Amino acid sequence: MAKLLHYPLDALSRSIRLALSECGVEVELVEEKPWEWRQEFLAINPAGNLPVLIADEHGPIVGAYAISEYLSDVMAGRDGNETPGFRLFPGDARSRAEARRLVDWFHRKFHDEVTAYLVEEKVFRRFGPQSSSPDMEAMRAGHENLRYHLSYIGHLAESRSWLAGDAMSFADLAAAAHLSTLDYLGEVPWEEHEAAKNWYALLKSRPSFRPLLQDRLAGFIPSGTYADLDF
Amino acid sequence: MAKLLHYPLDALSRSIRLALSECGVEVELVEEKPWEWRQEFLAINPAGNLPVLIADEHGPIVGAYAISEYLSDVMAGRDGNETPGFRLFPGDARSRAEARRLVDWFHRKFHDEVTAYLVEEKVFRRFGPQSSSPDMEAMRAGHENLRYHLSYIGHLAESRSWLAGDAMSFADLAAAAHLSTLDYLGEVPWEEHEAAKNWYALLKSRPSFRPLLQDRLAGFIPSGTYADLDF
Repeated sequence: MAKLLHYPLDALSRSIRLALSECGVEVELVEEKPWEWRQEFLAINPAGNLPVLIADEHGPIVGAYAISEYLSDVMAGRDGNETPGFRLFPGDARSRAEARRLVDWFHRKFHDEVTAYLVEEKVFRRFGPQSSSPDMEAMRAGHENLRYHLSYIGHLAESRSWLAGDAMSFADLAAAAHLSTLDYLGEVPWEEHEAAKNWYALLKSRPSFRPLLQDRLAGFIPSGTYADLDF
Repeated sequence: MAKLLHYPLDALSRSIRLALSECGVEVELVEEKPWEWRQEFLAINPAGNLPVLIADEHGPIVGAYAISEYLSDVMAGRDGNETPGFRLFPGDARSRAEARRLVDWFHRKFHDEVTAYLVEEKVFRRFGPQSSSPDMEAMRAGHENLRYHLSYIGHLAESRSWLAGDAMSFADLAAAAHLSTLDYLGEVPWEEHEAAKNWYALLKSRPSFRPLLQDRLAGFIPSGTYADLDF
């Protein structure tokens, strides 16, 4: 079986776990702590980022970008494997571009402005080599940015069926992956953002989401409603 | 004709200018200064990043990720337009994944570790709202990181025909785009990295590179060998 090197509270890893599940691809999860910079891991991926998919003996597929597009290629039958199923980037070239714009938005902009502050700052710092408390100024900026992003998600969810258009795409999975790590830590003010909450509730109730809701991290108890579908 | 909103010394813009030219797609270049955060530009792209392709009346295609994959889709005939020509991500799904790993390496890792320090710090700061001198500590880190990246490029170029494998891909264009902005500013110690230099010389002599070598930025004279094919 293919292996996915991941970290439970890493949003990019989570987006790929969701995509693999939606595509019906089973993988064995292998936990990698990104702050340890293990030599064995760096030999597989010198960039040190997660996730990494080890599908077969032909070497690893590295990073959420390469893995998501690889899944899209394989599911679209580029390798002669015409499987019906979830399309990460559905529709014509133009629709696919809109989904990719949003994946970039969440995996880069949302990551740098919110997830890096509120999750990595809080969790990775605690476990990292110089175990320390989170930087309060960074946490404050993260919370402020999160409100802007929740408004943007709400705006998209109100004007379209799914974030990128008529069909669920990898953009929905990427956005939900980031929010799920924040939700684990109880950082999402859902009550102020009803449209975003309704969209997230749809994602959260999908079978692909169930394993994420069962993740538990030593030292961090999930928020009371983290695994609750009726939050 | 399609328009590309770009900035001459923005590496991501340059990677797309190269890709469009290699694909034989002509565009009108429209300069956008990324540090100005113009309202009209943010109305087109709320994320504020470059480049943005305006191909037709159906709205913009935003960011190097969405544009490069859009070009790949269109060139591969996904929209019924079977054009022979440059493939941004050539080969099978696995080869394409390797090219994308490297695009991510350059557009994210190299960008954050080198280009952001040595180009954006130097140029955007000078023109930005609080015009100021570059942070010397950041410049020092950028120079140190650049040596590591040049060694990695040299390692790839010595073990393969092109950075990602047997054929030129968008990974080569992305890497060359970043190096070209550094080269404009005279920041690349080519003499210490012969394999990387030989690979860059191949790229630099392509017709797609010519317009980049003619770029001139007010206040910044290009290095003596910037436009020299025999540097």
